[in-house]
Amino acid sequence: MTRGNDSNGPRHTFALWLTGLPAAGKTTLAGEIAGRLRHMDVPACLLDGDVMRRGLNADLGFSEADREENVRRAAEVTKLLLDSGVIVVVALISPFRAGRRRARELVGAERFIELFVDAPLEICQRRDPKGLYARAQAGEITDLTGIGSPYEPPRYPEIHLRSDRDTPQALADEVIRYLRDEGRLQDRGES
Amino acid sequence: MTRGNDSNGPRHTFALWLTGLPAAGKTTLAGEIAGRLRHMDVPACLLDGDVMRRGLNADLGFSEADREENVRRAAEVTKLLLDSGVIVVVALISPFRAGRRRARELVGAERFIELFVDAPLEICQRRDPKGLYARAQAGEITDLTGIGSPYEPPRYPEIHLRSDRDTPQALADEVIRYLRDEGRLQDRGES
Repeated sequence: MTRGNDSNGPRHTFALWLTGLPAAGKTTLAGEIAGRLRHMDVPACLLDGDVMRRGLNADLGFSEADREENVRRAAEVTKLLLDSGVIVVVALISPFRAGRRRARELVGAERFIELFVDAPLEICQRRDPKGLYARAQAGEITDLTGIGSPYEPPRYPEIHLRSDRDTPQALADEVIRYLRDEGRLQDRGES
Repeated sequence: MTRGNDSNGPRHTFALWLTGLPAAGKTTLAGEIAGRLRHMDVPACLLDGDVMRRGLNADLGFSEADREENVRRAAEVTKLLLDSGVIVVVALISPFRAGRRRARELVGAERFIELFVDAPLEICQRRDPKGLYARAQAGEITDLTGIGSPYEPPRYPEIHLRSDRDTPQALADEVIRYLRDEGRLQDRGES
């Protein structure tokens, strides 16, 4: 079985799917991971939920149906990217187990790696870099995940990261170590 | 100005946007072009309208609004792919000038290359590999582009290809030649 980058075949790609509460640190960690992969000369793409909300998914709101459609489209784009040889790092609340399961099926289970970016709600509320929790407390947002809308934590994620205990750098190291241990990454001698 | 693949910077990517009537030969040509690019060790992704209709855009129909949304999403995905260093070859009827102009703006004009895959309607009707024109003639499809729904040919495409006169191989050669002439491609000494 060949891994890594065959000279004439498609790269063995995979998706790192980061799920967690708002302000759990998904985007920061995803950026760290994607940066490390690119530094290793591995083409990697960051799909960020907030960025997609401003572009591809700008027509969607926050109803349950729209949240599911948001996840579905992210999964479809992930699939397109994987099929073109790019590793995808997805940072997306993706609050529902069923939606993440559908994403896994759509992307292909063998190349779907679920990362639970786990921090207690109180910590996320204290961080609140975008002021979302403050706005929820003020009643301006009624359906924020974790407050007015449920978040269903993964039961069996491939990687469970405590983002309140370690720095994003340390967590990214852990993810890269996991990928190496699983034979998903190979250093290339020369580029 | 550097072109091609910098060792530590992002690749200078671009989108080849193939527009034309149904059965004009867009998908075949796009496949030829993407294959040649990959053979040159350039990461290239094929975004095919029919494939997207079965996945990302499966919720869309063929009303004018849905056609525009179809084009918008293709452009958004193109943008995501370009931003991750992949060259994108899009095969999409994209019938309206306004929609293609919006796609160009969204993707970024400096990396949007419009290819008009041009064959006379009669030739497309005669080819009809998917039997769409036959179904339109039988009244089973009322809004097929070119028959019940208009196709607005590009006025100033970057490349105008007559797909009734040349083989897909010859046309792909022409596109690669264009890309080289424009400094968009560089052969890498070793891979």
